[in-house]
Amino acid sequence: MFTPNPYSLNSRKVAEATDEWLAKRGVSKTQIGQLVHFLQKDYFPDLSLDECIVHVDAVLSKREVQNAVLTGIQLDVLAEEGKLITPLQEMIKNDEGLYGCDEVLALSIVNVYGSIGFTNFGYIDKLKPGILKKLNEKNGEHTHTFLDDIVGAIAASAASRIAHRKQAEREADTNLPLD
Amino acid sequence: MFTPNPYSLNSRKVAEATDEWLAKRGVSKTQIGQLVHFLQKDYFPDLSLDECIVHVDAVLSKREVQNAVLTGIQLDVLAEEGKLITPLQEMIKNDEGLYGCDEVLALSIVNVYGSIGFTNFGYIDKLKPGILKKLNEKNGEHTHTFLDDIVGAIAASAASRIAHRKQAEREADTNLPLD
Amino acid sequence: MFTPNPYSLNSRKVAEATDEWLAKRGVSKTQIGQLVHFLQKDYFPDLSLDECIVHVDAVLSKREVQNAVLTGIQLDVLAEEGKLITPLQEMIKNDEGLYGCDEVLALSIVNVYGSIGFTNFGYIDKLKPGILKKLNEKNGEHTHTFLDDIVGAIAASAASRIAHRKQAEREADTNLPLD
Amino acid sequence: MFTPNPYSLNSRKVAEATDEWLAKRGVSKTQIGQLVHFLQKDYFPDLSLDECIVHVDAVLSKREVQNAVLTGIQLDVLAEEGKLITPLQEMIKNDEGLYGCDEVLALSIVNVYGSIGFTNFGYIDKLKPGILKKLNEKNGEHTHTFLDDIVGAIAASAASRIAHRKQAEREADTNLPLD
Repeated sequence: MFTPNPYSLNSRKVAEATDEWLAKRGVSKTQIGQLVHFLQKDYFPDLSLDECIVHVDAVLSKREVQNAVLTGIQLDVLAEEGKLITPLQEMIKNDEGLYGCDEVLALSIVNVYGSIGFTNFGYIDKLKPGILKKLNEKNGEHTHTFLDDIVGAIAASAASRIAHRKQAEREADTNLPLD
Repeated sequence: MFTPNPYSLNSRKVAEATDEWLAKRGVSKTQIGQLVHFLQKDYFPDLSLDECIVHVDAVLSKREVQNAVLTGIQLDVLAEEGKLITPLQEMIKNDEGLYGCDEVLALSIVNVYGSIGFTNFGYIDKLKPGILKKLNEKNGEHTHTFLDDIVGAIAASAASRIAHRKQAEREADTNLPLD
Repeated sequence: MFTPNPYSLNSRKVAEATDEWLAKRGVSKTQIGQLVHFLQKDYFPDLSLDECIVHVDAVLSKREVQNAVLTGIQLDVLAEEGKLITPLQEMIKNDEGLYGCDEVLALSIVNVYGSIGFTNFGYIDKLKPGILKKLNEKNGEHTHTFLDDIVGAIAASAASRIAHRKQAEREADTNLPLD
Repeated sequence: MFTPNPYSLNSRKVAEATDEWLAKRGVSKTQIGQLVHFLQKDYFPDLSLDECIVHVDAVLSKREVQNAVLTGIQLDVLAEEGKLITPLQEMIKNDEGLYGCDEVLALSIVNVYGSIGFTNFGYIDKLKPGILKKLNEKNGEHTHTFLDDIVGAIAASAASRIAHRKQAEREADTNLPLD
């Protein structure tokens, strides 16, 4: 007698798929780290790229973030292959201005590190530095309607994480009295 | 010489596809109207089902709502057909407890009518009255991981819309002086 | 025998108080309209400042927006007068980087016009053009920790509203066929 | 010559003020823990109240949460004392149905632990079990318009945290292969 295995989530698989798919879609952690460095270098002049990458890794270890990455990339890939229903296909393929589910998923990433990340997200989403510019090149080959916003959101979240950590370090150093 | 038409959004098509796909997935406006009635009948005893359906229609006329409906149903359908990447396929197919992109899309619907809808959304999402119970029956045939939350969000939004309108009517009736 | 009047919301009063307090805190609708124009002029070269102000007025007519404006200004005023509890007083007075309730309230405004406004909000919140620069001058006299973000959010919402309306006009003009 | 100390955030003070004000307003961590237990007991029958309180403490250690708690309680206290501007005073004092900034602040708490908490927040916010019932008694003495929603949000967040941790434990136990 055959009993099918009941479904059981395997978190390691979700984490690994997130890493694999980001790489497959042309995004490295170094490139996301560069966005973080761009956002934070004026506030923390000693901040190194390596340190930024550590924070990117921490953001990517969150399940909420992994879910958004996989879901967004999935929709991009299917739009690229022309496999979505009409008119969703056309809206995602053309990064239609009134289609905002990409921003919605991106914001669910930013929220995990709190509201102080909103500003940074909007700022790089508009400026498109580094890898964001490349993702946004609409050359007909690839569709990155979701990934574009998601990568910006990961960078903004890592920037928020740095702001929180730096504050903790500063307070540990100065050993503030409670008075 | 052939020049392909540049992309141009056709809003009527988006609205029509939303209506068609809701029907195809087994959800009628009357059923959503019944959820609204369930949520609001204690506050407005004279509220009719027909009135509720009018508000459901108004919610469904918003582009932000249509985008979320089409995106969510698309992911449900693909999960049903086993066409998503691993482990997204397994997470959506099994309505995995730690996968929250369905709630994220649903909340983007509720937000359009303001924060007073959050409570109603959570309440019927937990209680699963009416059509929500049917959508949530996991009998192996259909996957409604997203639609479930989206229908609840539409009902919660229509309930918020009613609360705003009823207040306006009350004030018009009583012709409130300014001080 | 004395019976106190039961509470009854007067929406006109809420709307009027919103207008009055924005003016009292040094923000005119023209100045918000200029932010909207700054955000949208590249996409719609014919857009006039007057048109922008009409959209600002529409955004300000929403109860959700009025609630956020009044709540934010209230907290600014109390911080200015030194009347908040410690350490909330210090955090708001100094626009502390890890305090994000100002961004939270601002985002509740943006949400009403959908997720496409997130980017514009973050962008002007970082760039601080026009009135935002003035609100952000920390000269010791006034505290605009909340108002700063709220004005940016109203402008971003008006920009979203314009994007939706312009699309509708375009479609009406071209009389798009359905297939 | 006297130079005033520049502002420097003291995180320990923010954390302590949060604990003190929750206690002063009549909310104990045990009572919030009971809400968490109410939400999760059916999913995890072995879950103890003590374990729930540990998770409540973890949620309360987040700065984003502390900011929302202090801001919400501040507005409640000022409304209680009649010190807010008109008509904000009347709206908060009377927990006006169309005033949603309390839900907005509450959701900023829930967001930190991800979207899976939305449902639980809405559910207990409507049902008002335990301490929420007490906070919601409008006997004229106290105003808990914000605290009510904030306590529900803390409980919903702790429930989300438990769901994430229990999954991690389950996977560690079963030592899932990656195949």
